[in-house]
Amino acid sequence: MTRTRFQHELDRLKQNLLAMAGMAEQAVQRAMEAYGSRDLNICRLVLSGESKINTAEREIDDLALDLLAMQQPMAVDLRFILAGIKINADLERVGDQAVNIAERVMRLVELPAVELPIDLPRTGFLASLMVRQAIEAFVQGDAALADAVLRMDDQVDAMNDEAYRAMSRVMKDSPEYSEAALNLLLISRNLERVADHATNIAEDVIFWVQGADVRHSARSPQ
Amino acid sequence: MTRTRFQHELDRLKQNLLAMAGMAEQAVQRAMEAYGSRDLNICRLVLSGESKINTAEREIDDLALDLLAMQQPMAVDLRFILAGIKINADLERVGDQAVNIAERVMRLVELPAVELPIDLPRTGFLASLMVRQAIEAFVQGDAALADAVLRMDDQVDAMNDEAYRAMSRVMKDSPEYSEAALNLLLISRNLERVADHATNIAEDVIFWVQGADVRHSARSPQ
Repeated sequence: MTRTRFQHELDRLKQNLLAMAGMAEQAVQRAMEAYGSRDLNICRLVLSGESKINTAEREIDDLALDLLAMQQPMAVDLRFILAGIKINADLERVGDQAVNIAERVMRLVELPAVELPIDLPRTGFLASLMVRQAIEAFVQGDAALADAVLRMDDQVDAMNDEAYRAMSRVMKDSPEYSEAALNLLLISRNLERVADHATNIAEDVIFWVQGADVRHSARSPQ
Repeated sequence: MTRTRFQHELDRLKQNLLAMAGMAEQAVQRAMEAYGSRDLNICRLVLSGESKINTAEREIDDLALDLLAMQQPMAVDLRFILAGIKINADLERVGDQAVNIAERVMRLVELPAVELPIDLPRTGFLASLMVRQAIEAFVQGDAALADAVLRMDDQVDAMNDEAYRAMSRVMKDSPEYSEAALNLLLISRNLERVADHATNIAEDVIFWVQGADVRHSARSPQ
């Protein structure tokens, strides 16, 4: 394979990861939309979308394998492909979290609607934003943007801790709402895991970009 | 690099993953031991062990990168290295779950001790066993054993569902124990995630072994 075709295939890997990220992010947003509207149809849409994400994951792995098999890549390309493989796995798990949220919403809809002191849409917005920015950092090779994602994770963690405190108070004071509170708390934790996956992606971007930098400055031959 | 040295380095990758798995599994077992004995010192041991696991993860990634860079590997070796990279990430997250469990135990110790209807040691035993068997399947290249791990995951899921039902009942009926019940439920979910990571590892083993089989029987050249 020519170097040009290799670069073309690398671009295809990037594009596929971008599409995969779009699907994963959309799944989270839909799950949160279902939460806001208590809409079972949207929940089912999230559940049925999972297999598409799983298929995309396998295709990206195959593409990465082909790239590794077809030409002995340079160190910088290797690190990029390695980052892509890991990011792929994280995106698939973002999709899993969206499914978990949709399942929680389906349980919530069976319970009487109640207003509890928790701002899940805000957590959901931040977690989705983290995924989008982490992928943008990957596509642009932008370590500074990846670094910003890492800092946002602290905010999501703090919101999740606050959700824990608020919901355990509800459970103690208003046991009739305990199951609703529990499900809200579990959604908060699912969102916190989405943010964790975005953090993993951002770390992989930094690993790749810094490796490239190291390689460009000085690196002893192996 | 000679083919013999390449094989030697592949073995080293396998050995390092085995050691990493040992650390991750030990972390889970220690966290569950801390749960059983309400021992804060063991909790702290789990927390302080995290950085060692993170270091091991990075070393394994570097080793995998070196392997990919040093020689154009055959398809079967590529799949093995790719599986190793993904298994590595899963093992690191098993360690994260152990840390989460230890943190939950630290919170539980602050609350009055209470007997609630949940058998976490049994879930913990099964989840640890799944990690061990998944890694054994990897080391032996044993797809049948990997398949057995996938089936065990259903058991852990069922135990986790039962924990959800039992603990939400406690929350409703005995609000004074709601925070203890919540923490027990969260530990159950952490264990369920450990089992999920073992499942991912088992799937990667099957992917690698089946790829090898396909390659050994008939595969069109790329």
